[in-house]
Amino acid sequence: MNTIKKIGVLTSGGDSPGMNAAIRSVTRAALYKGLEVTGIRYGYQGAIEADFVEMKKLTVSNMIQRGGTILKSARSAEFRTPEGRKKAAENLRSQGIEALVAIGGDGTFQGGTILQQEHGFPVIGIPGTIDNDLSGTDETIGYDTALNTALDAIDKIRDTADAHERMFLVEVMGRDAGFLALETGIACGAELTLLPETLVHIKEVKETLRNILTNKKRSTLVVVAEGDESGGAMELYSNLKEDFSDIDTRVCVLGHIQRGGNPTARDRVLASRLGVAAVNALLDGHVSVMVGVVNNNIKLTPLKSGWSKKKSIQTELLDLTKILK
Amino acid sequence: MNTIKKIGVLTSGGDSPGMNAAIRSVTRAALYKGLEVTGIRYGYQGAIEADFVEMKKLTVSNMIQRGGTILKSARSAEFRTPEGRKKAAENLRSQGIEALVAIGGDGTFQGGTILQQEHGFPVIGIPGTIDNDLSGTDETIGYDTALNTALDAIDKIRDTADAHERMFLVEVMGRDAGFLALETGIACGAELTLLPETLVHIKEVKETLRNILTNKKRSTLVVVAEGDESGGAMELYSNLKEDFSDIDTRVCVLGHIQRGGNPTARDRVLASRLGVAAVNALLDGHVSVMVGVVNNNIKLTPLKSGWSKKKSIQTELLDLTKILK
Amino acid sequence: MNTIKKIGVLTSGGDSPGMNAAIRSVTRAALYKGLEVTGIRYGYQGAIEADFVEMKKLTVSNMIQRGGTILKSARSAEFRTPEGRKKAAENLRSQGIEALVAIGGDGTFQGGTILQQEHGFPVIGIPGTIDNDLSGTDETIGYDTALNTALDAIDKIRDTADAHERMFLVEVMGRDAGFLALETGIACGAELTLLPETLVHIKEVKETLRNILTNKKRSTLVVVAEGDESGGAMELYSNLKEDFSDIDTRVCVLGHIQRGGNPTARDRVLASRLGVAAVNALLDGHVSVMVGVVNNNIKLTPLKSGWSKKKSIQTELLDLTKILK
Amino acid sequence: MNTIKKIGVLTSGGDSPGMNAAIRSVTRAALYKGLEVTGIRYGYQGAIEADFVEMKKLTVSNMIQRGGTILKSARSAEFRTPEGRKKAAENLRSQGIEALVAIGGDGTFQGGTILQQEHGFPVIGIPGTIDNDLSGTDETIGYDTALNTALDAIDKIRDTADAHERMFLVEVMGRDAGFLALETGIACGAELTLLPETLVHIKEVKETLRNILTNKKRSTLVVVAEGDESGGAMELYSNLKEDFSDIDTRVCVLGHIQRGGNPTARDRVLASRLGVAAVNALLDGHVSVMVGVVNNNIKLTPLKSGWSKKKSIQTELLDLTKILK
Repeated sequence: MNTIKKIGVLTSGGDSPGMNAAIRSVTRAALYKGLEVTGIRYGYQGAIEADFVEMKKLTVSNMIQRGGTILKSARSAEFRTPEGRKKAAENLRSQGIEALVAIGGDGTFQGGTILQQEHGFPVIGIPGTIDNDLSGTDETIGYDTALNTALDAIDKIRDTADAHERMFLVEVMGRDAGFLALETGIACGAELTLLPETLVHIKEVKETLRNILTNKKRSTLVVVAEGDESGGAMELYSNLKEDFSDIDTRVCVLGHIQRGGNPTARDRVLASRLGVAAVNALLDGHVSVMVGVVNNNIKLTPLKSGWSKKKSIQTELLDLTKILK
Repeated sequence: MNTIKKIGVLTSGGDSPGMNAAIRSVTRAALYKGLEVTGIRYGYQGAIEADFVEMKKLTVSNMIQRGGTILKSARSAEFRTPEGRKKAAENLRSQGIEALVAIGGDGTFQGGTILQQEHGFPVIGIPGTIDNDLSGTDETIGYDTALNTALDAIDKIRDTADAHERMFLVEVMGRDAGFLALETGIACGAELTLLPETLVHIKEVKETLRNILTNKKRSTLVVVAEGDESGGAMELYSNLKEDFSDIDTRVCVLGHIQRGGNPTARDRVLASRLGVAAVNALLDGHVSVMVGVVNNNIKLTPLKSGWSKKKSIQTELLDLTKILK
Repeated sequence: MNTIKKIGVLTSGGDSPGMNAAIRSVTRAALYKGLEVTGIRYGYQGAIEADFVEMKKLTVSNMIQRGGTILKSARSAEFRTPEGRKKAAENLRSQGIEALVAIGGDGTFQGGTILQQEHGFPVIGIPGTIDNDLSGTDETIGYDTALNTALDAIDKIRDTADAHERMFLVEVMGRDAGFLALETGIACGAELTLLPETLVHIKEVKETLRNILTNKKRSTLVVVAEGDESGGAMELYSNLKEDFSDIDTRVCVLGHIQRGGNPTARDRVLASRLGVAAVNALLDGHVSVMVGVVNNNIKLTPLKSGWSKKKSIQTELLDLTKILK
Repeated sequence: MNTIKKIGVLTSGGDSPGMNAAIRSVTRAALYKGLEVTGIRYGYQGAIEADFVEMKKLTVSNMIQRGGTILKSARSAEFRTPEGRKKAAENLRSQGIEALVAIGGDGTFQGGTILQQEHGFPVIGIPGTIDNDLSGTDETIGYDTALNTALDAIDKIRDTADAHERMFLVEVMGRDAGFLALETGIACGAELTLLPETLVHIKEVKETLRNILTNKKRSTLVVVAEGDESGGAMELYSNLKEDFSDIDTRVCVLGHIQRGGNPTARDRVLASRLGVAAVNALLDGHVSVMVGVVNNNIKLTPLKSGWSKKKSIQTELLDLTKILK
């Protein structure tokens, strides 16, 4: 029988829209189950510095719709040292916190895994990152919002591209993973989409673009993931400009707008589900798992595998970019 | 071996955001496979009246992002008669159209099923409806957009509800199905959500609301599905106003804004996948199936089952409305 | 020379987007000028109940973009009595508050006018209402946001109206003033716009609609102000349905979504200007004025005239609805 | 008495949201007055190449809400030569076009001025540019939309800036004019706003930022106009990074999203007013004027002064950036 009485909740690493919805869900689910909840500000750094705040039902009112995170986020160098983690564990325990729900990406889960191993402190991970690159869940919190933000921006760019019959190279976030670029590319009707997961030689890029331009489409959109081997939109532009000097070409790096904004319905529902699932996992005695949604059902995965395994791109979606362009 | 050379595509019944993305996908996938494509305007009625338009690659340019349907939609009384269907089949054949892709909801698939049975005309259904009430697919085209539209409206209502500490009864679409109401309710943080799928006696509604109001939350949102047994937001208001005369209560019926608007990323990707899948299904020799996405993979279901079986609400989501309120 | 040291700020009456931006501007401008600022919650009622909150620079951080009002709003019956106002004045004075900035509409200004007359308490009004019906300013805070919210909703309705070639009767807010309906009608390309300020006999409405429908436009949008003599969209529908039984007609009452949402750039800039202007007016010794922007310059008007004079609709805009339909 | 029977309409130079609304208004107003209307595609280049399209009432249906321009835009080198302009004038006349309405910015008006001078061809200018830098009108078509697009992007950036307590340098468009940067800066609550119109030495920038950061605000936003003497956001970053190595600083160049998107209500109403005014000006016998709205009334200015005079920034708004930061 589990006898946890108080849990801590934190957000860590790069923020993503829907983190507030997850904080709310963890808080309300825990209170519903009779637990107390403490918010830890600034991620693991806040545990080290004992920056705590009590979470009540109304603390999380009227924030399900807000981007960012009311608990703030940070990357903590100190927590990467054994001394830092020891201090964190001591502070948490002296506050009466017996388990942790950590919302974030692979760095967050790595930290949580080690904290659990070294100090026996139960840690449940909730996947929150716009990159959608965590295995163990079909989607991560923030991904759907980032996708729609990128799409909305590109819809606007298409307007002006179309008015001038220009070519645009648009860079979306994704250092190691191309999910965001791939789905953005399909959804905006991009003529070409370049991802880290697929190798496309610059010669092939040029041939494809020349073919499209010859077919007299009114405008051309190329979506490039930040981490594509082309080097991103700016470098791609440098490599194209000589051969495509006949085409009015522009570059747009969407950047940090993709991390903010009110979360979409999907991200809020996902965050709500995962928050409840995280509390349930703790009460069920789990000590080092990530909660996810796989095939529309809650699934628990060892916390370790969330960051150690790579999720793959669906071939079906890759094919779409070629068939529909 | 399949020898189809020309296919027809139509949208029918209530329109939903993403139908244009589906038309585009069917068209481009068919052209990619070497088929010709004819658009049929105004649904089945257009087949009866031979209202045809040739679909080329550029016909579907720059419309993936638009709401509504460029092929128009209509409900056809004539198509419900054997004579109407005969005329439709003859017109399609005399135009050289050998198979049909029909985008719509259960009425559309019912029509397609009978057309196939009576005239041996292959019909592939693509699920497009904001109600998400078709079995054989986890989501229907337009559902995600309608959800976000409803949510965006309720976020605005929350602002004013909160400023005045009012109670709002908000009605969302859904005559027979509560999917939209349920996920909207979770995502907006509604204090109470009422669906056709669950029976909640008015006495219970009143107790729940009185409890919430006693706990001094700053505002109260009730989301009601159009088809809930309470009779919708207006009738609910009539039944509450006497007992809640101490609370400033307002009604908002969101209505047809939920059917329009630019489709979300999710709806565009879904429509793109299903359009390609529909063309593949035809080429594989299927004559009466609906294409869907189940557990993130393309799945074919007999066209008949899309409208004859009822999809059920997930218990896990129902529980969320109680835990997180 | 003015020796005010502390001012109060409140929002009252119907809320409107941009009120938070105005609160922020009043607060920061006052602090900039060396004054102290007290927030009064729930409008005049909060003065009666001494519901005060100290306003610091960071109290108003990160809220310029939020709808609603952090100071809450309410209508106060008690403040309409001499006793209520006496109590309010005493509470304000005992708190050290020497002057008031009241953000709201005509009811707010009426209250402020009487408070000033009875108790010599300086009151500066800032016009915040979505109706734009206050003379002494070209625009009121919240009007531009409400306009864009209504427009965004109608753009969605146009999608579905167009897909089905339907007629929609859309009701926008405006009990006594048609500004919102008029500009919404122009901006959405409505076929007919009905306002309280113009008398259009139902016979004329019918003739106009019949003409439009005969000209085979793809869809028909009628924008009706809540306070139009037709009785609003629902009653108009009742009066049209017999003669237009050949047309698929739907009604949409936009309702309270028009009061919420993040304020537009224009509303935030207007609120920022008027907040600073209000503090300046107090320091210049004014005791009963409304600040407004007329011809793009700050203008002071006696507080009384904001609510006692009616602003008129521009004939040029009325003509547009006929020329461009 | 004016005897014009047919007019031409074109969009030229950088596109801006609302150009379609202006095309619609010119077309419908001209038809209403009994004139015929020809659309000229790709700006002046289309006149040289006789790329004409007949404009009917329904040609401009359902596009008031779309960004971009259905008539396309281009910059024409050939039109800058006397031969080019001669060819254009001949083509227009041989098509029966007797006068031109040119929608665009200063380049467009310069071209129109010379065409009128050399060939006696009446040209009425409609100001369409996101820069708002044309004298003779308080606002240009597209400015309000660009402002709201920039603001919406920065609101998202504020979410993530706030979560991480970072500093962001955000660049908005405006090579020579700082209107967009100034109003964006006020509306997003920027801590510092840098414009081409004001000289701020880098030393002063550093002092201001250091002051802000010392006051422990949660995040810092600097809005920089593209054409500011700091060299834009990237160069500013280079100049700050050494002194502010203690602050996590990010750069975001908003870029071309500011040119697209559905026009706001304000831009659609402005475009509707100016389109009608342009047709009226032609019928009143004007041959070289720009139509504008000044102090909320239609005003005609010599076409020449639209591009030869510089519009100034309002001191009142500049002061706001300091008082409210």
